[in-house]
Amino acid sequence: MEFSSKLLENAVNQISQLPGIGKRTALRLALHLLRQPKENTHKLSLALETMVNDLKLCKSCHNISDNDLCDICANPLRKTDVICVVEDIRDVMAIENTASHKGLYHVLGGKISPMDGVGPHDLNISSLVEKVKNGSVKELIFALSPTMEGDTTNFYIYKQIKEFEVETSTIARGISVGDELEYADEITLGRSILNRIPFENSLKL
Amino acid sequence: MEFSSKLLENAVNQISQLPGIGKRTALRLALHLLRQPKENTHKLSLALETMVNDLKLCKSCHNISDNDLCDICANPLRKTDVICVVEDIRDVMAIENTASHKGLYHVLGGKISPMDGVGPHDLNISSLVEKVKNGSVKELIFALSPTMEGDTTNFYIYKQIKEFEVETSTIARGISVGDELEYADEITLGRSILNRIPFENSLKL
Ligand SMILES: [Zn+2]
Ligand SMILES: [Zn+2]
Repeated sequence: MEFSSKLLENAVNQISQLPGIGKRTALRLALHLLRQPKENTHKLSLALETMVNDLKLCKSCHNISDNDLCDICANPLRKTDVICVVEDIRDVMAIENTASHKGLYHVLGGKISPMDGVGPHDLNISSLVEKVKNGSVKELIFALSPTMEGDTTNFYIYKQIKEFEVETSTIARGISVGDELEYADEITLGRSILNRIPFENSLKL
Repeated sequence: MEFSSKLLENAVNQISQLPGIGKRTALRLALHLLRQPKENTHKLSLALETMVNDLKLCKSCHNISDNDLCDICANPLRKTDVICVVEDIRDVMAIENTASHKGLYHVLGGKISPMDGVGPHDLNISSLVEKVKNGSVKELIFALSPTMEGDTTNFYIYKQIKEFEVETSTIARGISVGDELEYADEITLGRSILNRIPFENSLKL
């Protein structure tokens, strides 16, 4: 790509560092900004800089937060003894949207993945084990993606906390509501049969 | 979407102002920046701010430029009497990539489109007519997208310069009618310039 301006070229190069954005899209975005009032670009760059400079992680659950404790941990109406373990903050947002969890969260910051060089010590696992050791947790809900990495991570944590008195559960794995059975993948379908629940229970959902 | 941080929410809102980027993608990009060293976000925002603040338009051809005259206009090896008329700077970049045009450019900044409220006076047309009037132009190559708006713009300019001694041509209709020029493949675009035809001939098609 031949640029007539180093300033434009530099902007396009920087934009195309973002994941999923190629040079062509980056150029389209740069030209869009050039057609807008300068104020818009200023607002964008200020928002990005302020975010990376001032954003904190909740001291308790590692959720992204503007304060030392996130709004969820600071909310006196939440059950503090039920903790939902998730990979990242998008999962917190997704579960909060369902309004199905009244407890707190613990954000691991990823899952164990030797292929990607992510080991247990790269994740927020020790602080979770610490909470369980302190006896302040009644139930841990593992809500990681049902992948091999997710299962590995669940099991790694489970081994460290099973000696303590704490209930553990994982989110149900099965056929998505509304999905045709014949299109479900084999593993999901198999697990949904092995982990079947009493029919009466399904009526209560 | 429920955010646990106003800083993150603000960044996501700003990113999702960009065309073709929804809230979900914006969140993915924001979290990516948060995982990177702060320096990367600083480089990005600085590149954007510098671009919108310092970028100039070439005084002669209205191409984007870091100086008063763009690199193409300032290049003594280019033929100054053959001018390729294009809609915007992406077209300059696309044609430069084909290395099929040795002359200069004239960037109109769009095409006549009453539907979008773009009239002839919103475009860099008078400065082009002025160049032709001065007798410094031997040939004008119309390289606008072969759409109704492109044809209208070509014809509008043609009417204003046909009394002067200047050859006119349009890029060969190797480009599929109705397609945007910037998405044409390099070979098709290059050939369409080499096989350009007198503009009058294009009116007969
Ligand atoms: Zn928290
Ligand atoms: Zn120029």
